[in-house]
Amino acid sequence: MAQKGNLLTFRPDVKVVDATIRDGGLVNDFYFSDEFVTNLYKANVKARVDYMEFGYRADKEMFDTESFGKWKFSSDEDIRSIVGDNNTELKIAIMADVGRCNYKEDIHESSESPVDLIRVATYVNTMPAALDMIEDAHMKGYETTCNIMAISNAKESDIAASLEMLGQSPVDGIYIVDSYGSIYPEQIRTISEQYMEIGEKYDKYIGIHAHNNQQLAFANTIESCAQGVSYLDATMSGMGRGAGNCPMELLLGFLKNPKYKLFPVIQFIENNIVPLKESGMEWGYDIPYLLTGHLNQHPRAAIAAMKEGRKDYSGFYKEIIDKD
Amino acid sequence: MAQKGNLLTFRPDVKVVDATIRDGGLVNDFYFSDEFVTNLYKANVKARVDYMEFGYRADKEMFDTESFGKWKFSSDEDIRSIVGDNNTELKIAIMADVGRCNYKEDIHESSESPVDLIRVATYVNTMPAALDMIEDAHMKGYETTCNIMAISNAKESDIAASLEMLGQSPVDGIYIVDSYGSIYPEQIRTISEQYMEIGEKYDKYIGIHAHNNQQLAFANTIESCAQGVSYLDATMSGMGRGAGNCPMELLLGFLKNPKYKLFPVIQFIENNIVPLKESGMEWGYDIPYLLTGHLNQHPRAAIAAMKEGRKDYSGFYKEIIDKD
Repeated sequence: MAQKGNLLTFRPDVKVVDATIRDGGLVNDFYFSDEFVTNLYKANVKARVDYMEFGYRADKEMFDTESFGKWKFSSDEDIRSIVGDNNTELKIAIMADVGRCNYKEDIHESSESPVDLIRVATYVNTMPAALDMIEDAHMKGYETTCNIMAISNAKESDIAASLEMLGQSPVDGIYIVDSYGSIYPEQIRTISEQYMEIGEKYDKYIGIHAHNNQQLAFANTIESCAQGVSYLDATMSGMGRGAGNCPMELLLGFLKNPKYKLFPVIQFIENNIVPLKESGMEWGYDIPYLLTGHLNQHPRAAIAAMKEGRKDYSGFYKEIIDKD
Repeated sequence: MAQKGNLLTFRPDVKVVDATIRDGGLVNDFYFSDEFVTNLYKANVKARVDYMEFGYRADKEMFDTESFGKWKFSSDEDIRSIVGDNNTELKIAIMADVGRCNYKEDIHESSESPVDLIRVATYVNTMPAALDMIEDAHMKGYETTCNIMAISNAKESDIAASLEMLGQSPVDGIYIVDSYGSIYPEQIRTISEQYMEIGEKYDKYIGIHAHNNQQLAFANTIESCAQGVSYLDATMSGMGRGAGNCPMELLLGFLKNPKYKLFPVIQFIENNIVPLKESGMEWGYDIPYLLTGHLNQHPRAAIAAMKEGRKDYSGFYKEIIDKD
């Protein structure tokens, strides 16, 4: 596929999606202060970010509200307490996980909600359930995306079948998700091409959500963008599960659309991320994350090793190779 | 230029160059313990890395030997005290900086030296001096490379002229050097193409030395490799000036040549890099480095800010924009 755009121009179809609360919430069990979330909202508005994802809308029957901060559930009321009527250009997103969201009841008509975009997260083997959620959200008036997770462990034929199903659904956008941070730029270009073909055939936009296990989250994001992918996920200082995500400060530094402002992002990091890190929150590239990424494994073993403060990297390596 | 190789094969022309002592020495003024350097040498031999760069061969008349560790000067004797007769497949490199090396006197006949490769570092405006150093080292029997620094601030026509001069010289290899960590993968592909054309015309190999200001050191290294670049610099845990370099652990995880072994690298990091970091040595991606990289500036202001422990990122940003 021919490259779209170049380094001196910008593509107006590109949208930046801040996923700090949702993916960052996997670091701190969604216990963000209201001040942090309000400051993030204001920074995103100032930086002219296109979407801000709050957390998951998890089912309160399945997950104990005492064990998680409120952004695990992201009720319309809690979002409204931050954004009011959201009289800004910033759109609001939440994520709904297949099998973990009571969407029929917990997702209300969009006319009654501050949310604009419902992002449905699924694995290839739960596509029918994802399609039902997409249909439901679409009927309720939302923009929708489908985020197919862990594609590095899925067969190309299953991905192709899933993309065809989505092409024929009312979904607005389809996301490439590198859950394990195991995908190289060379592969991201091929995958982007595959997704873009479906996108062009069925008039869906394509997005990317990358992880930084091999320090490739930013590289993969901008490489897929050059292939025509247009919804780009990023988080402040890369805050996100394990090795984290594509850092917003790198992405906005790269994008040439003059509407985007880097300065509010740098200010937000200075005033909100630095204190969070100083309070002991940890994320970002480290050897255990590299190793699970390299071996194309879920990062859970690496997350556990980091939580225990393990530095016996070679012992950890031997353990996870045995599990491979 | 067509892609060379793919992700399931390997190119036997690819060589890995460990630059931990030389670029890492810019972090600690070259004060490495003999134990660290010996362990690094052993790890490189075990990992089947192709070259290990010791430090610079700086002129002792210009630089105070009391102010730097010995690897600022990397005498043949000091190298021999680590490698003995180096009866291994690992080749030994040092760097000689234009204007900072008394090469006529301090670089001896290769038959009397443990060094295999002299890497001549220059800016485009000192090419004639670099060529004299290359000629000198070549006549003394060394393999040579020319590392043209700071190309992101040089004109394409000057780079083209420099490459032509090098093509007609006895140099064996020419390095792409992203000194400021400001180059994107899209640009690295174009630059690689330009260097590869000269390399193919004059039978020189092409190398890459990347910096990590925008978390692109690894991505740029493997992208240039896919274009035919074959000498790949890396350092243990990315240790190097400012934001550091392409991490060896990522590079060896990527390369498919079965001779390369990741495990000794992970062991070296565990036993030698972790204690070094715990002793207070700092390098790697941080906001000030991102900002100088983003603005295509030398990292010196960012290094100073990091040394002072500054966290007022937005104030730093305003300062360096004023200097831009």
